[in-house]
Amino acid sequence: MRKLHGSRNIFDIEVAGAHVTKRNIDVVERCKVVFIATKPAVVQSVLQEISQHVTADHLIVSVAAGIKISSLEKDLLHQPRVIRMMPNTACSVQKGATVFSLGMWCKQGDALLLQKLLTPCGFVAEVPESCIDVHTGMSGSGVAYGLVFAEALADGAVKMGMTRDLANKIAAQTLIGAGMMLLESGQHVGLLKDNVVSPGGTTSHGLHQLEKGCFRATVINAVEAATMRSQFLSNQ
Amino acid sequence: MRKLHGSRNIFDIEVAGAHVTKRNIDVVERCKVVFIATKPAVVQSVLQEISQHVTADHLIVSVAAGIKISSLEKDLLHQPRVIRMMPNTACSVQKGATVFSLGMWCKQGDALLLQKLLTPCGFVAEVPESCIDVHTGMSGSGVAYGLVFAEALADGAVKMGMTRDLANKIAAQTLIGAGMMLLESGQHVGLLKDNVVSPGGTTSHGLHQLEKGCFRATVINAVEAATMRSQFLSNQ
Repeated sequence: MRKLHGSRNIFDIEVAGAHVTKRNIDVVERCKVVFIATKPAVVQSVLQEISQHVTADHLIVSVAAGIKISSLEKDLLHQPRVIRMMPNTACSVQKGATVFSLGMWCKQGDALLLQKLLTPCGFVAEVPESCIDVHTGMSGSGVAYGLVFAEALADGAVKMGMTRDLANKIAAQTLIGAGMMLLESGQHVGLLKDNVVSPGGTTSHGLHQLEKGCFRATVINAVEAATMRSQFLSNQ
Repeated sequence: MRKLHGSRNIFDIEVAGAHVTKRNIDVVERCKVVFIATKPAVVQSVLQEISQHVTADHLIVSVAAGIKISSLEKDLLHQPRVIRMMPNTACSVQKGATVFSLGMWCKQGDALLLQKLLTPCGFVAEVPESCIDVHTGMSGSGVAYGLVFAEALADGAVKMGMTRDLANKIAAQTLIGAGMMLLESGQHVGLLKDNVVSPGGTTSHGLHQLEKGCFRATVINAVEAATMRSQFLSNQ
């Protein structure tokens, strides 16, 4: 069931089989698991509107960036079961990465229930709340770094004579391949990298350029800056 | 069917249902599609050994890095049907990227046959032979760049407080997610990136660090250097 503010997209959502309402309280009255997926600025007013209707049977899951569990719990009454989660945009292709943290009133089984609901969207893990900002900086924003990386790989290939369309596809597949090798092999990333590097071969020449350009430090800088921005926004 | 030089791994391969021989000529006599997957330095002697047995019914597919189609054709007799291909190491997890070029004696249907055989390994595309070196520099070596990128993402997250094991998994998933969004959306990479960038948000802070560190130029440098090395090795 989903509450919508305007009428845009209502038809598509109804066709997909969901119930749609314009009243927040309807959602709480009919559902046991309620996702709060409004803009962060609106969360407090939504919670105050529904708080009288939230019982111990409800699990309230917030997707709002930067709003802490303690703040969510404060805006609800009756020891609410609250989960704060942070997905990334790759959930749209079922290859997302989502982390979540449980509030103090959560029951045994709440983590498992959320895991089960979210697994079709990709990777899911429970983390301490302090890791949510880190996840935002590495993976929420990191999808954009990955896209820029793929674009630059393709730019290099186009410079060397490959067509753009083919270069884009191969660059995208190269990211997927590297990620899958890391996830599936269970081997250390350095060992996997070494396996691609023949003596005097092409990869050693490419890696030397990456090191010359402080590639690793640049990526670490990006994760650090984005994490710090997320921490700053959370504390506002 | 597979020819093996030593006895290492023979048992595993036989258990998997393959026939094993120690004679190259056996392979050519029993198979119509023959993959030449020796070290490049050994290719010429292998081709000379089998050349009398290669007929118009055979399709000879070389995986050897740097050995040109004209050279493969020269070492065989009777207008041989030759394909030169270049996979990458992510074929091991069925997310590889492979390109291939047809020799001058190939028949209609040879490209389709190879596509069909290789598709379980990942992405496959026919290219002009000049693109094989570019593919090597971007995707053959590029898997290593992707692994270094994932490692640096995880390094950043570990610096900011996430455990290594979780950071590795999320970094890998972030690469996969970015690659899948690019492959599946059909949208321009710049538009996909823009969709992740909220005004004043975390991603804009991360991207600024990437631009400060000449991230794109560094990746382009790597592809260029590795492609040039591949071109150099091909011309030796």
